Amino acid sequence: MQVGNLNWTSQEKEIAQKAFETAYQRETTALIEAIRSQASQVTELEDIWQLHDFLSARRHDLDGKYDNRYGMLVFVFANLVKEGWLTHHELEGLDNDKLAKIKSLSRM
Amino acid sequence: MQVGNLNWTSQEKEIAQKAFETAYQRETTALIEAIRSQASQVTELEDIWQLHDFLSARRHDLDGKYDNRYGMLVFVFANLVKEGWLTHHELEGLDNDKLAKIKSLSRM
Repeated sequence: MQVGNLNWTSQEKEIAQKAFETAYQRETTALIEAIRSQASQVTELEDIWQLHDFLSARRHDLDGKYDNRYGMLVFVFANLVKEGWLTHHELEGLDNDKLAKIKSLSRM
Repeated sequence: MQVGNLNWTSQEKEIAQKAFETAYQRETTALIEAIRSQASQVTELEDIWQLHDFLSARRHDLDGKYDNRYGMLVFVFANLVKEGWLTHHELEGLDNDKLAKIKSLSRM
């Protein structure tokens, strides 16, 4: 599947940027809530280190995940759909080829 | 200053163990409170990464600090006194040589 060399119209770029930001906002908001909740239940040192391990993993994950290079966006969106941070509906307006690729990749 | 080859009587070992545990308990309790407080104020992703950095530093610090080998205890206690997790008073019962070394090292 060729995805790295797709052309993005200016309208598609707008849709992509909005979808990207929407997903990022959702995921980071959920993370903040999860941290506040987990931290409020910390009673032992072991809980603290669990929180630390969790944060380390999430940071690593987020650092790699939100890659906004156009050559990567199809993969990024497929992953975000798969994880539930974005719906196919929110990507409407991208051309059918991109949508089909995203749909296909999101099922892998 | 020779500190690694000091002899510890069984009475001193008891005092040392109690002091060690007291300091550890105090410091970890304070850390748990600090984390709960800091986490409750998290509103942005940047706050989360600050919390993560803070936890990484504290974990590294605690991992190295509470070394309960007898050859290290004079250094450990001096450091704990210096940082305020232990008082000289709580080490009473150790011989004068050890107390003097701890006092001297805690001022460095």
